Amino acid sequence: MKKIKIEIEPIGKRIYIDKPTNGMKAISDAGIEMKSVCGGRGTCGKCRITVLNGQKCPVSKQEKDILSRDEIKHGVRLACQQVFKKNISIYIPSSSLSEEQKLQVTGKETKIRVDPVCRKYFIKLKRATLEDMESDFSRIKNALRGEHGIDIDLIDYKVLTCMPQVTRDNSWEITVTVRGSEIILVEGKDKTKESYGIAVDLGTTKIAIFLVDLITGSTVDKKGVMNPQISFGEDVMSRINFAMQGRENAEKIQKVVTDKINESIKEITKRNNLEPQQVVEMTLVGNTAMHHLFLGLPVRQLGLAPFISLTDVAINIKARELGIKISPGAYVYLLPPIAGYVGSDHLAMVLASNIAEGKGNYLGIDIGTNTEIVLKTKKGMRSVSTASGPAFEGAHIRHGMRAASGAIERVIIDSDSCIPKVQTINDKKPVGICGSGILDSIAELLKAGIIDERGKFRPDSNCIYKDSQGIFQYMLNPNFYKNSSSKDNKGSNISINQKDIVEIQLAKSAIRTGIEVLLENAGIEFGEIDKVIIAGAFGSYIDPKNVINIGMFPNVSLKKISQVGNAAGVGAKMVLVSGRQREIAEKIAVKIKYLELTVFPSFSDHFAKSTLFPETREII
Amino acid sequence: MKKIKIEIEPIGKRIYIDKPTNGMKAISDAGIEMKSVCGGRGTCGKCRITVLNGQKCPVSKQEKDILSRDEIKHGVRLACQQVFKKNISIYIPSSSLSEEQKLQVTGKETKIRVDPVCRKYFIKLKRATLEDMESDFSRIKNALRGEHGIDIDLIDYKVLTCMPQVTRDNSWEITVTVRGSEIILVEGKDKTKESYGIAVDLGTTKIAIFLVDLITGSTVDKKGVMNPQISFGEDVMSRINFAMQGRENAEKIQKVVTDKINESIKEITKRNNLEPQQVVEMTLVGNTAMHHLFLGLPVRQLGLAPFISLTDVAINIKARELGIKISPGAYVYLLPPIAGYVGSDHLAMVLASNIAEGKGNYLGIDIGTNTEIVLKTKKGMRSVSTASGPAFEGAHIRHGMRAASGAIERVIIDSDSCIPKVQTINDKKPVGICGSGILDSIAELLKAGIIDERGKFRPDSNCIYKDSQGIFQYMLNPNFYKNSSSKDNKGSNISINQKDIVEIQLAKSAIRTGIEVLLENAGIEFGEIDKVIIAGAFGSYIDPKNVINIGMFPNVSLKKISQVGNAAGVGAKMVLVSGRQREIAEKIAVKIKYLELTVFPSFSDHFAKSTLFPETREII
Repeated sequence: MKKIKIEIEPIGKRIYIDKPTNGMKAISDAGIEMKSVCGGRGTCGKCRITVLNGQKCPVSKQEKDILSRDEIKHGVRLACQQVFKKNISIYIPSSSLSEEQKLQVTGKETKIRVDPVCRKYFIKLKRATLEDMESDFSRIKNALRGEHGIDIDLIDYKVLTCMPQVTRDNSWEITVTVRGSEIILVEGKDKTKESYGIAVDLGTTKIAIFLVDLITGSTVDKKGVMNPQISFGEDVMSRINFAMQGRENAEKIQKVVTDKINESIKEITKRNNLEPQQVVEMTLVGNTAMHHLFLGLPVRQLGLAPFISLTDVAINIKARELGIKISPGAYVYLLPPIAGYVGSDHLAMVLASNIAEGKGNYLGIDIGTNTEIVLKTKKGMRSVSTASGPAFEGAHIRHGMRAASGAIERVIIDSDSCIPKVQTINDKKPVGICGSGILDSIAELLKAGIIDERGKFRPDSNCIYKDSQGIFQYMLNPNFYKNSSSKDNKGSNISINQKDIVEIQLAKSAIRTGIEVLLENAGIEFGEIDKVIIAGAFGSYIDPKNVINIGMFPNVSLKKISQVGNAAGVGAKMVLVSGRQREIAEKIAVKIKYLELTVFPSFSDHFAKSTLFPETREII
Repeated sequence: MKKIKIEIEPIGKRIYIDKPTNGMKAISDAGIEMKSVCGGRGTCGKCRITVLNGQKCPVSKQEKDILSRDEIKHGVRLACQQVFKKNISIYIPSSSLSEEQKLQVTGKETKIRVDPVCRKYFIKLKRATLEDMESDFSRIKNALRGEHGIDIDLIDYKVLTCMPQVTRDNSWEITVTVRGSEIILVEGKDKTKESYGIAVDLGTTKIAIFLVDLITGSTVDKKGVMNPQISFGEDVMSRINFAMQGRENAEKIQKVVTDKINESIKEITKRNNLEPQQVVEMTLVGNTAMHHLFLGLPVRQLGLAPFISLTDVAINIKARELGIKISPGAYVYLLPPIAGYVGSDHLAMVLASNIAEGKGNYLGIDIGTNTEIVLKTKKGMRSVSTASGPAFEGAHIRHGMRAASGAIERVIIDSDSCIPKVQTINDKKPVGICGSGILDSIAELLKAGIIDERGKFRPDSNCIYKDSQGIFQYMLNPNFYKNSSSKDNKGSNISINQKDIVEIQLAKSAIRTGIEVLLENAGIEFGEIDKVIIAGAFGSYIDPKNVINIGMFPNVSLKKISQVGNAAGVGAKMVLVSGRQREIAEKIAVKIKYLELTVFPSFSDHFAKSTLFPETREII
């Protein structure tokens, strides 16, 4: 019997079902947990999906009640109301996923061959006697060659100091961990089934730590913590300035982060009944400033034009040299930075998204305070970094906030009544608005004709309101418009004002300019791009349609867009479990050419043009 | 005109003179400084030499007065009384050398090609600009490839932290030190003419430190200091016991020695107007216990049978990991130990003495508390270690002392009058007797028939005397015998007693046993040995004739004996200035087979036999 294929984006999962199945159930069977408050009765509207292509999906009565006409027109349905009968490709927006599922999708995993740089071998040695006085090291070396065909010529000096005790305490039955031609760990008895690594995505704001099984390649556990360097400055530049003010500062800013990583490793290993000493390898990715500060490298040249990275090669360094407390002989592997403002996290993203190897033209983008964009064409890979600012993280926005409980994350505006439908994180009372909510708001304001393509509130709109300082604003409070006659400010006073819109204009313009310069440099049109990959936490939560609607990207089929989540973290894990992936990544690093945007003559033209929004009729 | 060839042993120097020249002058012209109190008048007798072969050397009147008939018979002459007219080969005993010269001969240098593992390259870099944002490291890498054809792929992490400042402070004109494919130092301006290394011979008692010019290969300066570990035990075993008693002890015994090495490096660099940070490489040799303690390796297994070394390969380790304060990116290279009781100092001696490469059968011996002996035959190289004890260092000898001012270092006994002629170090009043003096005494006592071949004082000898405890002794005080009627104890009461003789018997027997087992194992006779190499400080000061006379060696032509001084230190210097020599040494290490003496069935037979001295008529 022919199976029915279900493709689920942006997670990139493909499942097969035997018989027609309820959409909600099929998705749940695929291991993806969606929101459902009403229990599949079609009344809560939490399980929105977008049908990208495949079978026809008739609209149920419940769907007609819950969804807007516009949504229905664009293929939005409720998963619980649909039955998958034929091959279908669907898109599940982040807002439909359970909080737990959201965490789990922070990184679209690519299947790779597990091929770790550290391998374990169990050997039984002959006990030393007066007739057989071979040195311990030589005994191990010969056993590895004889029993496993492995040639080694080095043993870590710290491991050498522990080896004789381990050997003798365990009746000369030991497990040796080999990295390259070096022994980096000696354990008693057979430990070949237990091998662990740590992958770290060191972000300016957050640190993501993954505990990985190096035998199976699977992620055992993960943990996200705030980067404690925040106390020395929220953004990269203020931390660079702090570190530049003397050796003591540089040491302090390095130490807080290694301390935090050590603490996290201790915690994540402990809750999995492991010891940090069982971790035999660590990988780390991050932007170039985070990379340099982690290594204790000077950052002065990163803070001043021409913003130079000190190195562009991968670094293998003993964890103990950096104060990282894992196995005493273990190494930390750092992917190479691409340039001063394009870090190894970008490289990890390119690796994890298969941009370098894929066929056709790829655009990869990781939206943040600095947005790194890579364009891959026949001519090769070019990357830029663009100062998009912190608006998408909620900063510089009057009611902006980080994506946390109570943040408005999704907005739909009814153009007739002005009334917004808002969804908050964890369905809590609204306390502010996060990046995806801001993006939705702007797109909806444009679509409803409340603002024009220059970003100005249309003075004739009856949806806007002047605040006490005479600045126009739109209220993200349904009650406000329901009682529009009184215009009283019941409920939340969260709003989008003219200044907020300007911030978003600047941010999206910076990104669009980066894209335009890349396209110009490569000599292709946006329409020739085969795949757009949006990476990063923010990128996973946004509605890609609205990214297009505010003109951050030119218009592109949603099918071409893939939201891959924390691809940098995935890349860090890939190079943790595979030596082959390190080779691939290092080769990619050489191939990516960094373009400095500001030296392009067309830069300011593009920027000016990009501040404009699309006209209302262009909104999809 | 044909030149006259003068061969000078044991220094191994060969010079050519144009015309007949006074012996003293010829030796002085060869750069060797001899003792001379009388200014060449032939009255002080300090410039004794032994003519090994070559021209006939008539005896002058002065020589007849100064030298004993026996000395004259054995070719001893005064250099100042001889004229070198034809090719001649002479032997200069250590006692005839000036104190300064003695220090200088502590190591017969072998000419090798200078081929250091660290090389310096001067490069001028293009300044980074917004149009040229290459990373510092990549910039250096490309310049090295472009200007010098050198490919590197690594930069030491600590060097990376200093590089940007150095580069920018010196207008991008820098000198890069490369080791293998790693940059280990970046300095401003052209420093290619200045490159220094440190070689260390880490002895149980003494540490010899050499500052070496890595461009020319020459020794700039050297320094000898006591090993401060002595405060934790005089001998290796007591230090092993100390270190075994807990981690704190192990750390303490390691730290005192690294501190002392650091202090010495600081001193030796300072007095040559250098900084320790200019030292780019260090090599170290030592016995296996010193090697392990220096590295902080456990030593328990070295202290208990079967006395296993933890490693038998060379170690390259960052100096900073060991707390050695030289250039931050520098390495310490340690030659491999051969076995638990045959250390890397032995390997260094084998390397420096050219034993492995030389033609014929070689016996190499380094006399100490443990005496390591290597025998090279067609069958390969075999080494043993034999517990000869500290008697040759003056310990366990009633009036024994180390070789220091006032120690009796040379003894001749007139068999008729019993009167000894003694020579002390620095011609000071005698305060004790050092190894070479003890050796001389025993040999002379045998020759004079005062002791028999079992080592017993002949009760009928009128040269012996019972002390207050009734133990026979021979007084090393000429006045004692001159006033023999009174037998009063004027002047020094330094003597050799029966117990001292037993100590020497045990010591020399241990060594002789080692030699016999080696010969037996190789299936050759002592007579088939082509060259006997005596290494080590003690070995340089002894009279090789007397080594034979007490039966430590079988009888052998003096011509076959070569005293090479601190060959271990020379070996350490050779591997410091040459990567090729490291390869050679590491290959030798694999080839040397260690034999455990005690498991040889013939061991105890040999030992018992070897305690006997040669009969008087066999004395040469």
